[in-house]
Amino acid sequence: MYSFYELSMTETWQISIYQDDFTMTETCGDPTMFETFWRGPIGESATLVIPGYQTMSYFSDVGNLCWFLEPGFEREVRRLHRLVGNAAIEGYHVLVGTGSSQLFQAALYALAPPTADAPVSVVSTTPFYSMYPPLTDFLNSRLYRWAGDANAFDGDDYIEVICSPSNPDGSIREAVLKSKSGKDIHDLAYYWPQYTPITRMLAHDIMLFTVSKCTGHAGTRIGWALVKDKEVAQKMSKFMEQSTIGVSKDAQLRAAKVLGAVTDGYEHQLATAAGGDANLLFHYARQKMAQRWRALRAAVAASGIFSLPDEVAGFCAFTKDTVTSNPAFAWLRCQKQEVEDLESFLRANKIITRSGTKFGADQKVVRISMVDTDEAFGIFVNRLAAIK
Amino acid sequence: MYSFYELSMTETWQISIYQDDFTMTETCGDPTMFETFWRGPIGESATLVIPGYQTMSYFSDVGNLCWFLEPGFEREVRRLHRLVGNAAIEGYHVLVGTGSSQLFQAALYALAPPTADAPVSVVSTTPFYSMYPPLTDFLNSRLYRWAGDANAFDGDDYIEVICSPSNPDGSIREAVLKSKSGKDIHDLAYYWPQYTPITRMLAHDIMLFTVSKCTGHAGTRIGWALVKDKEVAQKMSKFMEQSTIGVSKDAQLRAAKVLGAVTDGYEHQLATAAGGDANLLFHYARQKMAQRWRALRAAVAASGIFSLPDEVAGFCAFTKDTVTSNPAFAWLRCQKQEVEDLESFLRANKIITRSGTKFGADQKVVRISMVDTDEAFGIFVNRLAAIK
Repeated sequence: MYSFYELSMTETWQISIYQDDFTMTETCGDPTMFETFWRGPIGESATLVIPGYQTMSYFSDVGNLCWFLEPGFEREVRRLHRLVGNAAIEGYHVLVGTGSSQLFQAALYALAPPTADAPVSVVSTTPFYSMYPPLTDFLNSRLYRWAGDANAFDGDDYIEVICSPSNPDGSIREAVLKSKSGKDIHDLAYYWPQYTPITRMLAHDIMLFTVSKCTGHAGTRIGWALVKDKEVAQKMSKFMEQSTIGVSKDAQLRAAKVLGAVTDGYEHQLATAAGGDANLLFHYARQKMAQRWRALRAAVAASGIFSLPDEVAGFCAFTKDTVTSNPAFAWLRCQKQEVEDLESFLRANKIITRSGTKFGADQKVVRISMVDTDEAFGIFVNRLAAIK
Repeated sequence: MYSFYELSMTETWQISIYQDDFTMTETCGDPTMFETFWRGPIGESATLVIPGYQTMSYFSDVGNLCWFLEPGFEREVRRLHRLVGNAAIEGYHVLVGTGSSQLFQAALYALAPPTADAPVSVVSTTPFYSMYPPLTDFLNSRLYRWAGDANAFDGDDYIEVICSPSNPDGSIREAVLKSKSGKDIHDLAYYWPQYTPITRMLAHDIMLFTVSKCTGHAGTRIGWALVKDKEVAQKMSKFMEQSTIGVSKDAQLRAAKVLGAVTDGYEHQLATAAGGDANLLFHYARQKMAQRWRALRAAVAASGIFSLPDEVAGFCAFTKDTVTSNPAFAWLRCQKQEVEDLESFLRANKIITRSGTKFGADQKVVRISMVDTDEAFGIFVNRLAAIK
């Protein structure tokens, strides 16, 4: 069986090409790892029931700047950040988007000068998330244009995207450009305790989050933004209004249920002082991620031809202990001289990955998802360990 | 009390401006009219339950060209079209979008030549749906550009949007441009039996539909496209992939439940030969729409200064009888010489409408929603009748 490990969304069409030769699994870089948790006791409390007559109106809250934001979803977003302490919420506007990809585009739309002669440059430190270039450029807008590595950028007007912890390499990032007229978007999809120690409460102008990476509910397509400036928040909301006339209420109710169940799990634990981590998503998921990283490092050691970024540790203010980070992706490099194109090399070994070239890096490195199903992950590490 | 009748999405920000002076209602042009139906017996069968562990993956059907399309939703779309007979489905690809606005943009993206020197012109017969220009231009794409009235267009390369029955004026439309290199998008949001007789089964290249106008579930944000050409369907799917990494599964499950309940209602009726229309959405809704049109025509007669498009009748192949059309919008004209700007005139009379200027028409005509709540509609016709 071939494992479609870390199949990118943009490679979806390739699936059909390979379908005849490869036996497909549904292990395409999804955060499906958390499914077992949601089949447990907490999962039951996250069950959503919507009667036939509900969620009919376009409007959720006509008095709100983001008129399609379900108040129950906003409440759970604020509750969760208050619990985890990863981002400031006081004085911030909460916006909802159809996943954080839509919010990323909304932020570009809001920050780009509407009347500039030339599109504003969008940059991010290499290796950058492979979806930033197509998300920026697929409609060939005159408002903004992908301009690559932030470190290579020379100029005062730009939008810098800071993904921290970084997708693909897990590093903690800060803005590298410092011009007064430049703007920043902080993509914090992975700034949750299962991936990295929560070392401080971030308070950037625009912070993007997504349910996909936080709880594993990617199919719900719900992200949120915390935005300091009212005018920017209004423009971002306007983007969602024009692009999709708001965001599905059903999806927001679902996300609210799921986020609420996470916070409830912790509050219940505190109230009852009961042991065990079965109801604590971040503890459960961190343990799982740590196991996988141990398995991956063992496989890399067994093979002998690969290397990974060094392990990083820090004090987590949420769990109150010193822990290593467990990034959602492994940034795997090959030390073997004759392997020029690591993605092809691994594909020949029945492992599908995403090449470094898609992240602005070289061919000798690939990104591998660490959040797939147990079965797919198991197949992957076994195959990797066997490569000499 | 002021009635925020037919408040446009793009005027949402105006709400806050007027909030101090106007008492708000939530009657903002929503298809909330159908809520009573969904509170009835059929509504119960449309209740959706989603357990905590469901809808986690990005993928719905990796073997499908539209990999994020829930098979259950596709099934219900095909069942409903088979029941109503308003559109051909054999040989068509079904695509799902975050409302039909997203599908409209997806169609522009798919039909626009990617390497043309100039953006392709997007046109529609005046009066055209007021959202087409901003949907086309808000990102200032180099791929396509709004070019106004189809009848005034001169050239061979274009994308013509045909909205039939037309929003805003309810007329039945066909393409007016006939160049071989031109492309058509058929927006059939209102081609359902409650609005117009189903005179034939349409079989255009791209046909757009939305749950919002069919069942009244606007907040779910689900639309679908029937697309003949495989390559066009792939490109449209690619748009949804890049713009929002697919479409919420929860929203699709919800839409599937609702559409399924509609078809079930009719199949059950046929099986049991039971009387009454309480379980038949289209019959219930048509009756309701017909009542409202009678009330509106009475109010227009009582006032004496307005006019409406003539009533149009036809044989409906679905209900097997001759019926008048009951458009979702009234295109109201003022005959009074001194009223230059009808929208302002009505606003001064505590009725909020959308000016003809937003539809490429003049200031002496406005669009009024016919699908709002009973309360709002009642206030509106009373106020209108009193204007002399």
